[in-house]
Amino acid sequence: MKHYRKELWFHVKGRREFINITPEVKKCLAESGIQEGLILVNAMHITASVFINDDESGLHQDYDKWLEKLAPHEPVSQYRHNVGEDNADAHMKRQVMGREVVVAVTKGKLDFGPWEQIFYGEFDGGRKKRVLVKIIGE
Amino acid sequence: MKHYRKELWFHVKGRREFINITPEVKKCLAESGIQEGLILVNAMHITASVFINDDESGLHQDYDKWLEKLAPHEPVSQYRHNVGEDNADAHMKRQVMGREVVVAVTKGKLDFGPWEQIFYGEFDGGRKKRVLVKIIGE
Amino acid sequence: MKHYRKELWFHVKGRREFINITPEVKKCLAESGIQEGLILVNAMHITASVFINDDESGLHQDYDKWLEKLAPHEPVSQYRHNVGEDNADAHMKRQVMGREVVVAVTKGKLDFGPWEQIFYGEFDGGRKKRVLVKIIGE
Repeated sequence: MKHYRKELWFHVKGRREFINITPEVKKCLAESGIQEGLILVNAMHITASVFINDDESGLHQDYDKWLEKLAPHEPVSQYRHNVGEDNADAHMKRQVMGREVVVAVTKGKLDFGPWEQIFYGEFDGGRKKRVLVKIIGE
Repeated sequence: MKHYRKELWFHVKGRREFINITPEVKKCLAESGIQEGLILVNAMHITASVFINDDESGLHQDYDKWLEKLAPHEPVSQYRHNVGEDNADAHMKRQVMGREVVVAVTKGKLDFGPWEQIFYGEFDGGRKKRVLVKIIGE
Repeated sequence: MKHYRKELWFHVKGRREFINITPEVKKCLAESGIQEGLILVNAMHITASVFINDDESGLHQDYDKWLEKLAPHEPVSQYRHNVGEDNADAHMKRQVMGREVVVAVTKGKLDFGPWEQIFYGEFDGGRKKRVLVKIIGE
């Protein structure tokens, strides 16, 4: 069994952003030399997500508005977590969008449907944060 | 390490439906000959889910109503994604229910609790769509 | 390829609770002797979750309140599933928080960011329920 590991770093300036990380993940897979297996891509922080969906800017704006409706940032005082912090909503948004994706590796490629793309979802930016890529297989 | 891959195709006539795909996934596992490992089952489309829950029609009606409350289909004009499309809500419903499940394979069987069943969740039907089954192990 | 399997049992007295199971999962990993691979931790019941987030009691209270807002327990009659049962809301809360986590194993350790902790999320307690830990690798 082969295994591969890499951290990808991101620094979102604002509070929230969606970043297409598919090219970086493909580079990791090529570096690994793994032809058949599974690839795990997960946020290493608990106020961020890794998820698979469409690379369409209108949809990303819809997601942002929708997540704000489900778990509003303000008033920050509505959350008990927000004592010296203001990111409780980010912990909730991340649960809706998910921590991780697991993708099949087939013949050395991400085994994707026609529109699948991997995103880093930042919900509490303003600092450097990491994504883990782990691949096992042969 | 052994590996196995299969696509399962579905054609839901209406917009939304939940289909129990456990029998098909079990067939894949039997075909693979894998006794110990992990099985990934994921929607290959970004307006559909694969999830594990109960095969109970009342619950499925509850899920449908609940998802409509969280991310209503109408008015379609409320979503920026809906320019020449009307499926933005489906992209949201899929995030709540999830893209994929990873299930343990033990002694050649899906290692399940008493009520676990795997479902394909369609949120934007009317055309043929796929689920990927990938198994690795020995 | 090595593989390892263990069930962890929990008996939450009340209806809902979040339990940090990271120490138990670490014990499993040490027992397995696996140095590089993937670990799957999943609820074996469909009204419970396994998820990764922060071990902070204020946040857990926020989660509980938020999940009650998204999928209220009462009135139980609002759900078709609740015929002789009262746990439809638990099936929804579990979908928001997720069934499972997949974690990378690197050099014999859970490959975690600074605040990641694994939780069992009970949404319909009062009886014994199980979590499955499955590890594959070498």
